[in-house]
Amino acid sequence: MNPTLRPLTAALIALTLATPAAFALGPYAPVTDARLANPEPANWLQYRGNYGGWGYSPLEQIHTGNVGKLKLAWSLATGQTEGHQSPPIVNNGYMFVTTPGAQVIALDAASGAELWRWKKELPGDLMQLHPTNRGVALYGDKVYVATVDAQLVALDAKTGKQVWAAQVGDTKALQYITLAPLAAKGKIMVGSSGGETGVRGFVAAFDAATGKEAWRTFTTAAPGEPGGDTWPGDTHKNGGGSIWITGSYDAATNLAYWGTGNPAPWPTEGRKGDNLYTTSAIALDVDTGAIKGHHQYHHNDAWDWDEVSAPVLIDTEVKGRKVKAAIHAGRNGYLWMLERKEGGKIGFIDAQPYVYNNVFTGIDKTTGRPSYDESKRPGMGKAVGFCPSLWGGKDWPPEAWNPKTGLFYIPANNNLCAELPAAEPGKYKKGDLYIGYPIEGVLGSLRYKDGQKPSTIGELQAWDLKTGKQVWVHKFDTHLWAPLLTTGGKLVFAGGTNDRQFRAFDASNGQLLWQYAMPSGVTAVPTSFEVNGEQFIAVQAGWGVDAQRMQSGIDSLTGKPQAVPQGGTVMVFKLEK
Amino acid sequence: MNPTLRPLTAALIALTLATPAAFALGPYAPVTDARLANPEPANWLQYRGNYGGWGYSPLEQIHTGNVGKLKLAWSLATGQTEGHQSPPIVNNGYMFVTTPGAQVIALDAASGAELWRWKKELPGDLMQLHPTNRGVALYGDKVYVATVDAQLVALDAKTGKQVWAAQVGDTKALQYITLAPLAAKGKIMVGSSGGETGVRGFVAAFDAATGKEAWRTFTTAAPGEPGGDTWPGDTHKNGGGSIWITGSYDAATNLAYWGTGNPAPWPTEGRKGDNLYTTSAIALDVDTGAIKGHHQYHHNDAWDWDEVSAPVLIDTEVKGRKVKAAIHAGRNGYLWMLERKEGGKIGFIDAQPYVYNNVFTGIDKTTGRPSYDESKRPGMGKAVGFCPSLWGGKDWPPEAWNPKTGLFYIPANNNLCAELPAAEPGKYKKGDLYIGYPIEGVLGSLRYKDGQKPSTIGELQAWDLKTGKQVWVHKFDTHLWAPLLTTGGKLVFAGGTNDRQFRAFDASNGQLLWQYAMPSGVTAVPTSFEVNGEQFIAVQAGWGVDAQRMQSGIDSLTGKPQAVPQGGTVMVFKLEK
Repeated sequence: MNPTLRPLTAALIALTLATPAAFALGPYAPVTDARLANPEPANWLQYRGNYGGWGYSPLEQIHTGNVGKLKLAWSLATGQTEGHQSPPIVNNGYMFVTTPGAQVIALDAASGAELWRWKKELPGDLMQLHPTNRGVALYGDKVYVATVDAQLVALDAKTGKQVWAAQVGDTKALQYITLAPLAAKGKIMVGSSGGETGVRGFVAAFDAATGKEAWRTFTTAAPGEPGGDTWPGDTHKNGGGSIWITGSYDAATNLAYWGTGNPAPWPTEGRKGDNLYTTSAIALDVDTGAIKGHHQYHHNDAWDWDEVSAPVLIDTEVKGRKVKAAIHAGRNGYLWMLERKEGGKIGFIDAQPYVYNNVFTGIDKTTGRPSYDESKRPGMGKAVGFCPSLWGGKDWPPEAWNPKTGLFYIPANNNLCAELPAAEPGKYKKGDLYIGYPIEGVLGSLRYKDGQKPSTIGELQAWDLKTGKQVWVHKFDTHLWAPLLTTGGKLVFAGGTNDRQFRAFDASNGQLLWQYAMPSGVTAVPTSFEVNGEQFIAVQAGWGVDAQRMQSGIDSLTGKPQAVPQGGTVMVFKLEK
Repeated sequence: MNPTLRPLTAALIALTLATPAAFALGPYAPVTDARLANPEPANWLQYRGNYGGWGYSPLEQIHTGNVGKLKLAWSLATGQTEGHQSPPIVNNGYMFVTTPGAQVIALDAASGAELWRWKKELPGDLMQLHPTNRGVALYGDKVYVATVDAQLVALDAKTGKQVWAAQVGDTKALQYITLAPLAAKGKIMVGSSGGETGVRGFVAAFDAATGKEAWRTFTTAAPGEPGGDTWPGDTHKNGGGSIWITGSYDAATNLAYWGTGNPAPWPTEGRKGDNLYTTSAIALDVDTGAIKGHHQYHHNDAWDWDEVSAPVLIDTEVKGRKVKAAIHAGRNGYLWMLERKEGGKIGFIDAQPYVYNNVFTGIDKTTGRPSYDESKRPGMGKAVGFCPSLWGGKDWPPEAWNPKTGLFYIPANNNLCAELPAAEPGKYKKGDLYIGYPIEGVLGSLRYKDGQKPSTIGELQAWDLKTGKQVWVHKFDTHLWAPLLTTGGKLVFAGGTNDRQFRAFDASNGQLLWQYAMPSGVTAVPTSFEVNGEQFIAVQAGWGVDAQRMQSGIDSLTGKPQAVPQGGTVMVFKLEK
């Protein structure tokens, strides 16, 4: 009631507003090849934190003993409502996130203060099969983002001003890009989505400074090329093998390892053969783009089992032998243990089913080539059921490797199958879907194993590569769409459930240690970083795209729709002081 | 590393997911006239908490001594990104929020679990001048929402199923509704926005059970009616006086008090006269809709000073006399102290400027009629500057009254002015804007007082009605778009600044006690409620609409755009345990 308070309170608040935390940021540190190859523990410089694709932060301030005290430090609405999938990428306190709608937001990682925002105006008639984005690449003083209208764009990291843009693909042919670019040795590499629109998959590299295209390597082999005999006629030209997840990279050999998508169209009647290099891991020379080696996880795919997740590169003991490993939890439901050999060749060590698969009848112990129960191959003539479902044992949400626990973590969906109706023959037509099945049949394909609702579906699994055996599994009654983060504090972080919880588990035994109800479901890649001596855990909330499509499939089975709120928010946590 | 952990952890998580907190909700308690007239302290049953429009919760668990321990209890993304303005309305743990895009979400107020969601499909070609909504009305077992396509819709409170819908206005004439309906005595009352589209303002009442229109009272008087002589010719037919903020209600007299918008078009050359009942308070008989009394805050408005906020009804001492008061912080920058008299008549007690106004040269002590500096009247022929700006000393964000402190709180903007270019004569044309100025001139009209950037703009003010004097003011360097909540814990809660902070102040002296960085700016109405013995503070984050338009105006003046993230989130706080 004292009017003299007026100047006092005015001074107080003026002070509060005049010192945004953003001012504490130092000059922007250029991102070099050396830093990407050996990232500082405090930073998360690329999609999976390191070139190997580990999804691992060595930080250990937040650990199994104190993660229960993790609290929201700040949050920021992105203004977008479709599925958010991109990791908060952090360089010395500068954070960069992407969202659906071709948007990049730069933030002060400690405070959440917005530094700049870039948003591309998208063509009004753009068809977006997957309206999402999986993040930026940092390189030099620039930030690189690829867009749903098939461009690769370079932005100034300090200002967000566009430096250059390159048209990578043809949007009229429904080529689009959702992956985070891969930066190495002066090149920015991207691929194009479009396994369902009849693209010919490729990885393309652009000069980081100028945006000039350096090379482009197709993932379907043309006649006369190695593997060209695995495609009849011209079928390789619209044969899929799309690239929509960031590759891993072996700096010692200058080889980038990519996973490739399903062949197109889905029915195999018109493309008998292995269809190289679809549903494979491929090793590309980053200087030239030449394919130096490959391993096809399964041949002549008929099940929409994209194998786009890049193999995780680990120098470790696998099945009792110390190797340069390449590990991949396949959409086909098998955990693939491969070996990076001399000159880019990829060798097979072992494969183990991590979810129920009723298509494979065996795996060749030398080559790793699976044999099939051909009655489980959908196609012309009749409806066919098979397991796992179109979304596989695991879709794109990345696995993680923790060198401290020596365990490999998989966000899996078990006991889910699919039934596809009789295929519809159809010719490729530019600008149309090229699936080979009626779209309602695809969207309504989800089935429970044996027609019975399983009590659990989602599984967070931990595997010991030394023995090739599962060590623990944490089960959920809902499906799991959970990119993983694991840390030096021996934690695994995962969202991905339809109850919008974001959780921390004990990486050694799978015990649930902490959970937090997010504003929306979480299907984005979590990261960790440190600023001013404090460790943070960062992730975007924002349910949508295929996690919701899978939810709708489950809703049709249960008859009880489960509403999952949508809406994008950057969420950043730290320990309570 | 122990495989036997598997069944254990599975059991643990299955338990976690199988007991959603929603199950704790009791049966839905019908909302009666008696409950609305005397709301339980635990509930927030209508737009401003009570019929008087106080914006006051008697709850005092959260108070000046412990508000610093307020923590986020839960949050929920709404999936909408335009300006969120609606209060979380709570009835025994059932929460109802509305969002832009004609959406109602029902939630478990304690846990944030979604109960149901209703969303109207809006016409694709709908022009939305103000894509927002200010909340539901509860009555009986139904929830009422009015939509931007000018409908009033009744939903079943338990299921969200539509019971009836009534077309209230003509969308082709750009009539649209943004206000929360007012429910009383079996009627649901709404009005139509459209002061800038040449509507003839009205309040309409609908039967709560059937949706049948009971009465419709226009806010511009026709020839032959009382006040009809204040409009030349047919000008009343498109004369504005739109109704876009919920009325207050005096249950003892069955009179609803509404504020009316600006006359249309803005230039006054074509509509000389007082233009009754625009920019007024009007008292309507709820049974018949008859106008029983009025007070015009300022006549023949030329400044877009809608006076749509309903007067706050308080039985208290004003200027030394115990009265049935009606208090209104005018967009014209004056605090109006009025008296509800016998039979609906509205008497004048006093008016005091609460922000800088250079248009009024005096106020008649008996009638309250202001006199004008006519050189400050914009119109034909030349550009004219005036203060306050088009958004006034306070736009729609509601004031609050706290019976414990005896203070009346105003979220004001001071030292902001406008300059309108020369008016453009134009005839009314259905479906077009009917402003009378080029739209760029309107959007670019904001000016600093004396051309100098003031060090502070936003002001949270507290006034003692007993003396008619300001008691304290808390200043912000940014503008303030802050609907207010005040509580029995002697707190005032306010968002409204462009730094996305939501704050609690000591209601007695204006001291800042707590602030929280929200995911987006806050321009929505905060509320408070109690469930299971715990007090909660609830508000939606979601910057946009006119708060952002004002921000853009300030951005043009400073040349340094201030980014404010957009995106809707329901945010609910409680004390840390």
